[in-house]
Amino acid sequence: MRAVEQRVLDAIDVDGMLAYLGELVAVPSLTGQETAAQEHVAAQMERCGLDLDVWELDLAKLREHPAFCAELERERALGVVGVTGADMAAGRSLILNGHVDVVPAGDPANWRYLPWQATLADGRVYGRGALDMKGGLCCALFAAKALHDAGVRLTGKLIVESVVGEEDGGIGTLAAVLRGYRADGALVLEPTELAVAPAQAGALNFRVRVPGRSAHGCVRSEGVSAIEKFVLLYQALMDLERQRNRASQDPLFARYAEPYPICVGTVQGGDWASTVPESLTFEGRYGVAVGEEIGAARRLLEETVAQAAQNDPWLREHPPQVEWWGGQFEPACIAPDHPIVTAVCGAYCDATGGPTRVEGVPYGADMRLLVKVGQTPAVLFGPGDVRNAHRADEFVPVADLIAVVRTLALTALRFCGCDEM
Amino acid sequence: MRAVEQRVLDAIDVDGMLAYLGELVAVPSLTGQETAAQEHVAAQMERCGLDLDVWELDLAKLREHPAFCAELERERALGVVGVTGADMAAGRSLILNGHVDVVPAGDPANWRYLPWQATLADGRVYGRGALDMKGGLCCALFAAKALHDAGVRLTGKLIVESVVGEEDGGIGTLAAVLRGYRADGALVLEPTELAVAPAQAGALNFRVRVPGRSAHGCVRSEGVSAIEKFVLLYQALMDLERQRNRASQDPLFARYAEPYPICVGTVQGGDWASTVPESLTFEGRYGVAVGEEIGAARRLLEETVAQAAQNDPWLREHPPQVEWWGGQFEPACIAPDHPIVTAVCGAYCDATGGPTRVEGVPYGADMRLLVKVGQTPAVLFGPGDVRNAHRADEFVPVADLIAVVRTLALTALRFCGCDEM
Repeated sequence: MRAVEQRVLDAIDVDGMLAYLGELVAVPSLTGQETAAQEHVAAQMERCGLDLDVWELDLAKLREHPAFCAELERERALGVVGVTGADMAAGRSLILNGHVDVVPAGDPANWRYLPWQATLADGRVYGRGALDMKGGLCCALFAAKALHDAGVRLTGKLIVESVVGEEDGGIGTLAAVLRGYRADGALVLEPTELAVAPAQAGALNFRVRVPGRSAHGCVRSEGVSAIEKFVLLYQALMDLERQRNRASQDPLFARYAEPYPICVGTVQGGDWASTVPESLTFEGRYGVAVGEEIGAARRLLEETVAQAAQNDPWLREHPPQVEWWGGQFEPACIAPDHPIVTAVCGAYCDATGGPTRVEGVPYGADMRLLVKVGQTPAVLFGPGDVRNAHRADEFVPVADLIAVVRTLALTALRFCGCDEM
Repeated sequence: MRAVEQRVLDAIDVDGMLAYLGELVAVPSLTGQETAAQEHVAAQMERCGLDLDVWELDLAKLREHPAFCAELERERALGVVGVTGADMAAGRSLILNGHVDVVPAGDPANWRYLPWQATLADGRVYGRGALDMKGGLCCALFAAKALHDAGVRLTGKLIVESVVGEEDGGIGTLAAVLRGYRADGALVLEPTELAVAPAQAGALNFRVRVPGRSAHGCVRSEGVSAIEKFVLLYQALMDLERQRNRASQDPLFARYAEPYPICVGTVQGGDWASTVPESLTFEGRYGVAVGEEIGAARRLLEETVAQAAQNDPWLREHPPQVEWWGGQFEPACIAPDHPIVTAVCGAYCDATGGPTRVEGVPYGADMRLLVKVGQTPAVLFGPGDVRNAHRADEFVPVADLIAVVRTLALTALRFCGCDEM
């Protein structure tokens, strides 16, 4: 390892990073309500030696973009980007992308630790967002800070993006792309268990409205229960899930029994215990294979619902409505031997001494916007296990945070270059 | 028919009754929010020649009564009773009981007519509550008005009760009983399709909380979906419903294929489309047979849920919780040849020229509070078909309203007696 590399690694302030992650977890930033967290990150970027670009997202204009999708109505949202490095011919530009928005905490009674306060225990940081993905974002900030504190001047641009709205479709990354942030390579710091992921499955949010016919519960068989009809559709979708995953052959997804799951996440039906429910709505997440065209994927789900409806006398006459809403994450991939992949793998090996894994991830994320809209070759690489995201007692291992901040510092140094190399 | 009887029937102001029903439908009175409607009825009682008794319910004291049940937290509620007639040995006292509270309208888009405005069309009055049961209540008010307008002096007390909270357990009728309103007979003016019902099935509101374990939807098989577990419990309850109704033999309920249905009326689970739902709650209504002990009925449902849970590895370790809440309507009955039954049947024949039917109703109502707490023999008798209650386009036929107001006037005259008879 070169002297400058070791100097940068030595300059990494792990304690500061953990302390800052704790601060950031304590700023609740549910999707759509990220402004306080974005301002917090912007202030930290300045302390990390990054030049700030903070702007109000032009929500009306973003909404017109073909890649736009978002579930929530927003009042406002901030873009926050910190930049360092020169723009010399010798250097390549690198984006480190992390989102500040988090999903709801659910019932706090299910948490061992408080969701909106980071707790360091058993070598892990617990808290909503610690894993998905304030942890990864903090690694980016403190990798930049280490470069700064070590007095390194990069010859290519290092661009650290703190984005909003990843959980509902990626409005923040789209805004950064449209503001002109493109690069020779990018890392999206989602939890990959330290694997380097040149492929991500897609994920499409859907909603199905199921009609019933209300009746007094005392003569319930004279009404039509939307809950009963939901059960039919639910079972049809679970059958579809089994078929799709049985057919999956992609070696990048070999470790997942179900790389393309159909998760029904919410259900809401009826409005009175003793009234036959006249309507029910359920929402879910539909996994899409890398290489699968999302229009075809949508049609398959729609046809499954329509077919189940055809088999039921009531639903045949009163077809359920399928809507696509919120996050519409296309799958994305780059070549597994792209220079950004090899750069991250090499940095990881040198930073940690461990072997690297290159494999796909089963979840949608902002990678697709960087690759498809921003023409920026991107991988996912980040601390922790996505299995612990979106649930109670979300956590990120401290060891993973350390491995990632070190890998990011080395990747930036080598990929962007510096005048000491 | 005696002259005084004909005079009373001739004094019935059907147009006035329909107009007043229209006014009352236009005062939304969801269960728990009935005060405006109660004040409206009180003013009308005065116009019907009734002596008013209006009082604030002592909610804290009512809550301590063993027969108390109510779903909703209330700020306040009014008792409204109108009384006429003397208290002579020759006369018998009669209660006419109707509730002003109504269930929610559901989605207005499912209504042909506006839910909160009465529409007279096709010989029917449409609107939320027109049937259940502002229509029956208006019949009582205008039967009293006809007696008053005809100059009749009853020798027994006629007590018209406008009560709140029937839909969530009968707090209003309980309050009237505890205020001392008891009688030799009572009619609860629920929709019976003009049958005289000396028996009502019971109905118990239940709630089941189903635990799951959240996980990111992209690895959904590593979480446990509370929706998937709900489906198991739902199917077990539908099996229980089939068993209970197959076993039913009561001749008073012979016309109902399912006199004791289990209606799952609401379901709510999960909080994010792409998160495996960690909890789900569903609520329903559990029909109880006349003569069935409600403790035993409750245990049967609880055991059904427990048994279904035993058959599932997750639910075995994380048992669903069953709660009994809100309306806990015990079944109730009186002898089918009780004088109040024969009195109503006779009055109906003479008032309408039609034959009477004596049969049970499959729904819970305030009858049980009159019979069991108030020791007041009661029947259900009222206009319209309960099948049209608790649903869009709720309506009551005008012909039924006329039949009922005439029957009530004759019943009061004959049962209470008058100094001209």
